[in-house]
Amino acid sequence: MKTIGVTLLLQGVLSLSFAQQNLVPYVHPLIGTEKMGHTYPGATVPFGSVQLSPDTDTLSYEFNGKYNGDVYRYCAGYKYEDKTIVGFSHTHFSGTGHSDLGDFLIMPTQGTLQLNPGTASDPKSGYRSAFSHANEVAEAGYYKVKLDDHNITAELTATQRVGLHRYTFPKSDQSHILLDLMAGIYNYDDKVVWTYVRVVNDTLVTGYRQTNGWARTRTVYFALSFSKPFKSYGQKNFDKPQVYRGFWRKFDQAHNFPEIAGKKIRMYFDFDTSEGEAIEVKMALSPVSQENALANMRAELPHWNFEQAKTRAQAAWNTELNKIQIDAAEPDKVNFYTAMYHAFINPTVYMDVNEQYKGLDQDVHQAKGTNYTTFSLWDTYRALHPFFNLMQPGRNNDMVASMMAHYNQSPLKMLPVWSHYANDNWCMSGYHSVSVLADAVIKGTYTGDPQAVLDACIATSNHRSYEGIGEYIDRGYIPATANGTSVSNTLEYAYDDWCIAQLAKKLNRADVYNTYLKRAENWRNVWDNSIGFMRPRLADGTFKKPFDVYATDGQGFIEGNSWNFSFFVPQNPTALVETMGGAKKFAARLDTLFSMHLPDKFFAETEDITREGIIGGYIHGNEPAHHIAYLYNWAGQPWRTQERIRQILRMQYKPTPDGLGGNDDCGQMSAWYMFSSMGFYPVAPGSAEYSLGSPLVKNAKLTLENGKTFTIETVNQSDKNVYVSKVLLNGMPLSQPMLNHADILKGGTLTFYMSAKPTKK
Amino acid sequence: MKTIGVTLLLQGVLSLSFAQQNLVPYVHPLIGTEKMGHTYPGATVPFGSVQLSPDTDTLSYEFNGKYNGDVYRYCAGYKYEDKTIVGFSHTHFSGTGHSDLGDFLIMPTQGTLQLNPGTASDPKSGYRSAFSHANEVAEAGYYKVKLDDHNITAELTATQRVGLHRYTFPKSDQSHILLDLMAGIYNYDDKVVWTYVRVVNDTLVTGYRQTNGWARTRTVYFALSFSKPFKSYGQKNFDKPQVYRGFWRKFDQAHNFPEIAGKKIRMYFDFDTSEGEAIEVKMALSPVSQENALANMRAELPHWNFEQAKTRAQAAWNTELNKIQIDAAEPDKVNFYTAMYHAFINPTVYMDVNEQYKGLDQDVHQAKGTNYTTFSLWDTYRALHPFFNLMQPGRNNDMVASMMAHYNQSPLKMLPVWSHYANDNWCMSGYHSVSVLADAVIKGTYTGDPQAVLDACIATSNHRSYEGIGEYIDRGYIPATANGTSVSNTLEYAYDDWCIAQLAKKLNRADVYNTYLKRAENWRNVWDNSIGFMRPRLADGTFKKPFDVYATDGQGFIEGNSWNFSFFVPQNPTALVETMGGAKKFAARLDTLFSMHLPDKFFAETEDITREGIIGGYIHGNEPAHHIAYLYNWAGQPWRTQERIRQILRMQYKPTPDGLGGNDDCGQMSAWYMFSSMGFYPVAPGSAEYSLGSPLVKNAKLTLENGKTFTIETVNQSDKNVYVSKVLLNGMPLSQPMLNHADILKGGTLTFYMSAKPTKK
Repeated sequence: MKTIGVTLLLQGVLSLSFAQQNLVPYVHPLIGTEKMGHTYPGATVPFGSVQLSPDTDTLSYEFNGKYNGDVYRYCAGYKYEDKTIVGFSHTHFSGTGHSDLGDFLIMPTQGTLQLNPGTASDPKSGYRSAFSHANEVAEAGYYKVKLDDHNITAELTATQRVGLHRYTFPKSDQSHILLDLMAGIYNYDDKVVWTYVRVVNDTLVTGYRQTNGWARTRTVYFALSFSKPFKSYGQKNFDKPQVYRGFWRKFDQAHNFPEIAGKKIRMYFDFDTSEGEAIEVKMALSPVSQENALANMRAELPHWNFEQAKTRAQAAWNTELNKIQIDAAEPDKVNFYTAMYHAFINPTVYMDVNEQYKGLDQDVHQAKGTNYTTFSLWDTYRALHPFFNLMQPGRNNDMVASMMAHYNQSPLKMLPVWSHYANDNWCMSGYHSVSVLADAVIKGTYTGDPQAVLDACIATSNHRSYEGIGEYIDRGYIPATANGTSVSNTLEYAYDDWCIAQLAKKLNRADVYNTYLKRAENWRNVWDNSIGFMRPRLADGTFKKPFDVYATDGQGFIEGNSWNFSFFVPQNPTALVETMGGAKKFAARLDTLFSMHLPDKFFAETEDITREGIIGGYIHGNEPAHHIAYLYNWAGQPWRTQERIRQILRMQYKPTPDGLGGNDDCGQMSAWYMFSSMGFYPVAPGSAEYSLGSPLVKNAKLTLENGKTFTIETVNQSDKNVYVSKVLLNGMPLSQPMLNHADILKGGTLTFYMSAKPTKK
Repeated sequence: MKTIGVTLLLQGVLSLSFAQQNLVPYVHPLIGTEKMGHTYPGATVPFGSVQLSPDTDTLSYEFNGKYNGDVYRYCAGYKYEDKTIVGFSHTHFSGTGHSDLGDFLIMPTQGTLQLNPGTASDPKSGYRSAFSHANEVAEAGYYKVKLDDHNITAELTATQRVGLHRYTFPKSDQSHILLDLMAGIYNYDDKVVWTYVRVVNDTLVTGYRQTNGWARTRTVYFALSFSKPFKSYGQKNFDKPQVYRGFWRKFDQAHNFPEIAGKKIRMYFDFDTSEGEAIEVKMALSPVSQENALANMRAELPHWNFEQAKTRAQAAWNTELNKIQIDAAEPDKVNFYTAMYHAFINPTVYMDVNEQYKGLDQDVHQAKGTNYTTFSLWDTYRALHPFFNLMQPGRNNDMVASMMAHYNQSPLKMLPVWSHYANDNWCMSGYHSVSVLADAVIKGTYTGDPQAVLDACIATSNHRSYEGIGEYIDRGYIPATANGTSVSNTLEYAYDDWCIAQLAKKLNRADVYNTYLKRAENWRNVWDNSIGFMRPRLADGTFKKPFDVYATDGQGFIEGNSWNFSFFVPQNPTALVETMGGAKKFAARLDTLFSMHLPDKFFAETEDITREGIIGGYIHGNEPAHHIAYLYNWAGQPWRTQERIRQILRMQYKPTPDGLGGNDDCGQMSAWYMFSSMGFYPVAPGSAEYSLGSPLVKNAKLTLENGKTFTIETVNQSDKNVYVSKVLLNGMPLSQPMLNHADILKGGTLTFYMSAKPTKK
């Protein structure tokens, strides 16, 4: 405790020594809300449990056994292209490629009560409203929009666990605030398992909702408070009639009846409003109980001062954003701080103010530290968690502890794969939590028992019945017959195994180290030297025919073709260069990747990205290629890395709603941006080395949690000067394009000398 | 705390002074399992949270908007008439006329795995088994049966919160224990809202199930333990395919997969068994969490000693049964102690060993004292709770506290009507919890704040929107147009209001007393003097036409016709006698009731009773008439009361499976039996006076919780000597056929002098 006190004190001192800038204006939450970014524009605080944001559609999904692209579009609830808003719900993923959430949709309306959302083409057919981007403001921690059909201005802000709405009504004796308990993201007919609501008094409502969504067994509890007593309220149950309910007919359950339960419920609360009268609504969430939701509300937002709540939310953002102060062109600052914003809104805190949370075992637990959820690990192990190890080590420590708690609560005894809200949805491939854990231990972030971490990694990576692991252990690769993504799985397992080896090495566990270092070589087993590509292999050892190195579907890979995935040996680029025929051939091959013309038919089967998310055949919009541009460093052509990085930074990130070339993926795309724009990148998390690229910023000042400052500065920086002629660390030239994590932690200065011409040496 | 210690000490001393008899053999749990009794034959401890009992059918109920008699038959899960057993489930109501529960059905089988229950007519079509009553043993706390189709002997016993099964298998490498998580009592397609199961290891499974049944929002958590590790296990999900489950295909979820969730799940556990090998199974329940269920198991049943558990369960019963030691004919002792058994199995403890329970508000609460559930108050206010005030005041105090907790957690601010498992199902009429509360305060049982009790009674009785209360308050009666059971409601409210008046009087609240004493007179407003019957009245004050005093349906009454309900003024029989034309006419009218021939067509619409449940037109099988035989005491003809009571005791209670003439109704029928067979009855709970009848026992020794003993003895008792010639209390003759509760509490002796001829004086 003493140590923490000192750290906080040091931070206090430091925040005095560096004047805090107002960086909130550089955050444009609308970036990524158009096309494929899948970000949301609403209000949240850093790593906030509540993400209060407008939903422009809540399509119902009738299961027909196949992929439904329309629903996929609404991963974040909001599409910039849309013309209507259905309402404001309290939970949203940022940048995912599959979805869930959208809990407790609230909508203010006026006039005749409507309890159906209506359609986008005819908003007046329901409670939704047309809106215009001209009347929309989206800031970090604040959102505002005019709801044209109801002549109501809606404003949103949030605390950690409470969403605060302010609705400014016209004069009306038919003003309503709706609570749609059927609405949700990626909705389908049976998704809402149960809803329970109790109207405690004329300003307080509590309840919960259980859903069977991407998270299979998920319950969110709430406490809802109004700044003004409603004059009446009611509900409609859209479910079919139920057995047993005879004796409930003693009540008029539709009007002013305070004990509501069922599967398909929409509620309304009625008010008289004068012209310009604002009614505020607080919605507090809890993973545990209504009582906890109410306690969260009382602890975090005991007042009705919207401006104060907004100011505090934005101050919280400013504190986070100031951890890196950059000097760069204005649009680059917008990109950079919006990237930081998107990187710092997930994982989310999953714990009440009393530190209770619901575990993977569906029982209530007391957290040690802060419990987090929403781990999109296939994405985020690459750069987001490494970024946290650098700029948020305290939180990353708690995230690792949360993943260990997940493991301990798992009847499968497995670390999370893609987990949210006390569930694993098992999305994507690999067991990349081991990368996050190893990286955190190796970089000194994790304060818990590292041996327990190693044990969890070993158990997870030996779960034979999961996704071909048994075959992988027995054969050194997964036969194509056993698994549809046998090659990418084998490659990813091999990398993860290398991480476990690094962790074992750190812990002096030679036996484990040797075992896993051997497993880390398994990438070689899916290398077909006759064609020079990674390729699916059959159980008899032969390679699968036919095979297409450009295609993704059915070729043994996930979200990538062999052209991209053949570069996926981040743990040993040197060996990969050798395998691919040496440095020259390797560099030429990279050139081809970045310059090829990928036919449209292959683009069509590449999920989650726009056409602009591709440079040649390099697919930045999906993650497997994120390290590739740095591989030139291993081919003796760092200048190529430098120009490619600058190219990607410019082409794939724009300060516009359609500015992201692919899903932000819970901050992974954003973390890539921040690292790369500062000139370095963690090619292989689990290693403490960063690979150098070409900084986009003029300079960046990193205020670390240990109290040190690390400064990145450039000489001769410009849009044309994308090449690095030399790099000094604290005045001493670096001989390799590498930077060690420990050197950053010590504090110091990294100086990039920029040039318009490559330095080929 | 000191007082309790002293009381316990006194009890200890007393239990030394009266040698405990072995009364368990007099308990025949099969009584009432045939025809209309709706009791269950399985194993439970006094007021046990677990009621582990065989189910002979688990019919699925497809909602078609009308009453389904077939499902109604299975209120207790077991029908003596049936030839097959589906399995053994852990929760059962005793004697109800509507139902729910039947949680966690377990069935041992052998041979080819079957995951459907099959049909009664072809038991081999599923996992169910034929059985014979010849191979069946049902005792207090113990049940045994041979499952013929599987050649398995099943034995059951229980602790407070744990069911213990012992299955003796033949030699087989295909022995199974099934856990059917779809099964339930009064089941229908959507009843199971959600099921979650985790297989912790090869002997331990935990989980929970939420149902939308008679209790709308009800979750039961469990921990299941096997005495022998299973060799394999699996599950089948009978629900339709679900959206979102793509990534779960990474696992074989059907076999040996430990993390199970869904709506329609049946599980199986496989064993190799040698000839005669016994496998034991513990199932612990909790209203709060899996963790609590496991803690309950570890606290109550840490061993695998079935005999010890059985011995303890039966010892617990013996302790309770010995509270009244009677001398009577053997069949009468069977009736008496089985009645006591049925009276002491509900309400049930609803609280974990750590004293947590789920409240009506669906949040978790810490109990003060013992929290109880299952309050069938329309039935049990009459004699069961008064019986508890006499023989179980400590528990009744906790029951009243549980009802007050319900009130405090209720968003409606209403006391329970018919509550179970954190829900009110609102079954039947009146607000009779006020009778239970008033009786407990007036008789000195309740140790909590009596003013808060009065406040709760006032709030409940003024809930205008409930069942005509608003009209009742405004007009003094409920118009027939407002409510289908307007007359019985008016009569019952009037009685309940009198209880509130008595409570107010006790608390010196003159204002409340006057208000409610006036409301207690409202029975007069549905009395039609022109026909001499209670009768539905319209809003304009006129009486409804047509009207049939024999019919029940559509006449303004619930479970009774005007002939029976016209006697429902328990709070003021004297005034009723007057109203009905004086003592002579009144007595003649009672004679007519008991001797009339009720045409079959009226019987057909009288629910819940057998033809034998009627004496003339007196319907003992339903509760509204339970006080009627005692009313002769107010008509100057106590000898008529005496002969009728003895007649009812003989005709309506027989020591056979079909021995109960109607639903036992959570012990109300049984409490009537015990009171009446000891010679007194609480005609108007809320009064401390009992009305005297004619004892059936030779004598009865009541060991009270205050350490006193009250003895009832008879002189010249015989089957023919049903008339009482005089009664002495501690040697002094009683001038009225009344006994005061306080006189019992002081301890003493009540002596009935019996005769074959009435003493008409």
